[in-house]
Amino acid sequence: YSTTTPYQGYKPEKFTHLHFYFHDVISGDKPTAVKVAEARPTTTLNVKFGVIMIADDPLTEGPDPSSKEVGRAQGMYASTAMKDIVFTMVFNYVFTAGEFNGSTIAVYGRNDIFSKVRELPIIGGTGAFRFARGYALPKTYKIVGLDAVVEYNVFIWH
Amino acid sequence: YSTTTPYQGYKPEKFTHLHFYFHDVISGDKPTAVKVAEARPTTTLNVKFGVIMIADDPLTEGPDPSSKEVGRAQGMYASTAMKDIVFTMVFNYVFTAGEFNGSTIAVYGRNDIFSKVRELPIIGGTGAFRFARGYALPKTYKIVGLDAVVEYNVFIWH
Repeated sequence: YSTTTPYQGYKPEKFTHLHFYFHDVISGDKPTAVKVAEARPTTTLNVKFGVIMIADDPLTEGPDPSSKEVGRAQGMYASTAMKDIVFTMVFNYVFTAGEFNGSTIAVYGRNDIFSKVRELPIIGGTGAFRFARGYALPKTYKIVGLDAVVEYNVFIWH
Repeated sequence: YSTTTPYQGYKPEKFTHLHFYFHDVISGDKPTAVKVAEARPTTTLNVKFGVIMIADDPLTEGPDPSSKEVGRAQGMYASTAMKDIVFTMVFNYVFTAGEFNGSTIAVYGRNDIFSKVRELPIIGGTGAFRFARGYALPKTYKIVGLDAVVEYNVFIWH
């Protein structure tokens, strides 16, 4: 079920910078993220520790949610810190417009959402982003109640 | 708790192609994948958005489930798209036969199960597959009700 040959080499050839806005809506009747699991509340834990959300969050060109959609952030985020709100991000961002339509980047990291700028590793990708390595720098653009608009600058070697 | 020394270099030496069949059974009395979490059903979400399954799916040499077992796909898949059925795959495939017995590959990607051929990044591995990088091309071989047989071709640099 396997054949092994000498390594022919794979070298990244390109560097891509992506800039878009990520919209996470959990309130109202059209949420883009829903709660799927939660720890039984205990008195000792003050912060929302132990929640898993599943999200299909739109990615747009501009900060306005109605601006052009360029992709979707599909995956899970879990609140995994006993102090402050920190999300473990398990996502693939699929791009749906332009040159990278159909390609994905694999995002896997620790998102400390109330710190000014965070860093998330890009650990792989598909299509144009096959073998991708890089990092994303999410920065909160706007918060309305529980819903957030996050500005992303992503740097990818692929 | 850490010591850092100059980088001595690690270069992949081999390229391996794996071919096997992945069996996901969720119906009947011997399921290999079970539901562990789910979003509260809402009227607006038509597709099964927000389900997490945990799986220990057998990998075999041929498409027949009774053909020789070569490994197990152990991990989670979550339905993370509001339109269509798309799974976020968080798996390690452990091989249990032949040269790669005991080695694993880390599979992490977006599985758009109704599209003809999909691509999943291989983001790492252990044993013979330590430092592995590559990709898997799952292709649905057969669907019987909710159960699926998926043909995998996997390409690994390690």
